[in-house]
Amino acid sequence: MSEVRRDIVTDTWVIIDIENDTIQKIPADIPKLTNNCPFCEGQESRTPNEIYAIRDNTPPDKPGWKVRVIPNIRPILRIEGELEKVGVGVYDMVSGVGANEVIIETPEHIVNFFELSEEQIGLSLNTYRIRIEDLHKDKRLRYILIFRNHGRRAGASTIAHAHSELIALPATPIRIKQKLEGARQYYEYKERCLFCDIIQQEIEMADRLVFQSDRFVVITPYASRFPFEILIIPKRHCYSYQLIEKSEIADLANVLKKICKAIYHVLNDPPYNLVLNDSPNLLPKLNYWKTIKNDYHWHIEITPRIYRRTGFELGTSFYINRFAPEKAASILRSNL
Amino acid sequence: MSEVRRDIVTDTWVIIDIENDTIQKIPADIPKLTNNCPFCEGQESRTPNEIYAIRDNTPPDKPGWKVRVIPNIRPILRIEGELEKVGVGVYDMVSGVGANEVIIETPEHIVNFFELSEEQIGLSLNTYRIRIEDLHKDKRLRYILIFRNHGRRAGASTIAHAHSELIALPATPIRIKQKLEGARQYYEYKERCLFCDIIQQEIEMADRLVFQSDRFVVITPYASRFPFEILIIPKRHCYSYQLIEKSEIADLANVLKKICKAIYHVLNDPPYNLVLNDSPNLLPKLNYWKTIKNDYHWHIEITPRIYRRTGFELGTSFYINRFAPEKAASILRSNL
Repeated sequence: MSEVRRDIVTDTWVIIDIENDTIQKIPADIPKLTNNCPFCEGQESRTPNEIYAIRDNTPPDKPGWKVRVIPNIRPILRIEGELEKVGVGVYDMVSGVGANEVIIETPEHIVNFFELSEEQIGLSLNTYRIRIEDLHKDKRLRYILIFRNHGRRAGASTIAHAHSELIALPATPIRIKQKLEGARQYYEYKERCLFCDIIQQEIEMADRLVFQSDRFVVITPYASRFPFEILIIPKRHCYSYQLIEKSEIADLANVLKKICKAIYHVLNDPPYNLVLNDSPNLLPKLNYWKTIKNDYHWHIEITPRIYRRTGFELGTSFYINRFAPEKAASILRSNL
Repeated sequence: MSEVRRDIVTDTWVIIDIENDTIQKIPADIPKLTNNCPFCEGQESRTPNEIYAIRDNTPPDKPGWKVRVIPNIRPILRIEGELEKVGVGVYDMVSGVGANEVIIETPEHIVNFFELSEEQIGLSLNTYRIRIEDLHKDKRLRYILIFRNHGRRAGASTIAHAHSELIALPATPIRIKQKLEGARQYYEYKERCLFCDIIQQEIEMADRLVFQSDRFVVITPYASRFPFEILIIPKRHCYSYQLIEKSEIADLANVLKKICKAIYHVLNDPPYNLVLNDSPNLLPKLNYWKTIKNDYHWHIEITPRIYRRTGFELGTSFYINRFAPEKAASILRSNL
């Protein structure tokens, strides 16, 4: 038996097998620890010069840091150059202007994010905010994405040391446009924030609620694209991660540690991605900037990568999810 | 150096590394031949009863066939039941009505599609048409997708015997909606078919043209999402695969054999997906049905799966392609 569920935010559909009880477990396939990790404290000379770091009065690119941000050694986009739009016959392109940074989240060689202390996770979360704030001053940069790839099947590099990546883009990505548009249409119709309504409904229905803290709810989305997909939403309506409060950072650090640990135990250290879905840069004043403060609500997605996309997903952007989110939530709840 | 290119059909963006010359080669990882293939001639009793077959007066579910269509043994959607739409609070679902068929493309145990004879490939292509025609009589079925998964990383099952899959969906998928909308907007503005214009431009520019036959062009798309992505477009403007002509089937069989063989040799038998991008079922008379005959143009996508999506692609639907389509086309041209 299947249900075909619509994701109200992005208007995408997912076929959910609501009968299957078998969980596929696929290991993250983490590269082994070597003595040569360039992200460890003491190895600073082996990376490009740091862009930002949390330090106790130590000089840049030397030991004595807690979080360190460096440019990607092989960046896919570069900060130099004008934002040029060029037509190529019927096609369009913009020049490859942007940024590609790596946020090293611990000086020690720790692979699993949830093994960091809450304080250390909080420092990373605050670094995300600081980097977004800085890059939003550049109006060529339309969207800043922060994400983590854990394990080879999730696209992780050969460096296992806990880190996140940041990519600043010269165009707003279609998935974000879909989310903005879904949220805008809902607000226009209901005069309420879609995400605030989702929070309320999920707390009431409870079957997809993994847990809630003072400031956040953790759910398995109704139209989960992947088994054990997780959505973390701040309870306070807020369109921008840049505006996250100190108390929210402390709470979120605890929430992330708890949910990542539960996923680790239930799925046996699966490959996963974590993505911060923030609002776009408002500086260029594109057409969404007026309403976004009311209708958008930042959130975090965690997607275990224990299923391979087939030609079906590639051809349709429909997804097939063989494990119901209600079952995933229940299993996670009993492993918190 | 990168270029950020926009796919004019779907409004998605791809960051293309135009400097890299290294091709990543990943083997398809095909399960080994055993004596137990249930898709081989003589093993008909081990599959569900056939829905359709090309036979020379032999009885159903017995040997003596050339192409055989069976239901998927573990269907994700079922043909029985009403198409019900249900609201679940703020969410929507429809019942899991649809179809999930397997098209066995040869009675012999051949794994690589391009090793079939042109005549045999033509029989498969005609079977696609017949199955689409049949399922389009059912107005609950909004979209029929036919696709092939080759190799484990492309989501293939454990059965290596050459086959395609068909999934009939109760809702039109977002990627198809994006394509329909992109094509409609272009037609509205230019009063010309977008795909016809792409064909003309690609033949003139020639740098992404792999080859052309009498009836088809084979290109690497300007905004290719993946290295060595291929687009096959019929030269004759036609919105629906159901209307493919006999001479087009013979020509397409030759074209597919040629391009799949070239991909096999250049990338060393990579995992890949092949997807038929047809128009939706017009029977339910949804709002696209009036203009679609002018503005849509069916086509086939082939996407080698030699790159893993990271959190970046998941979070944005932006793609990063580390091998320029112009270089891919040039390499394929010299391996035809």
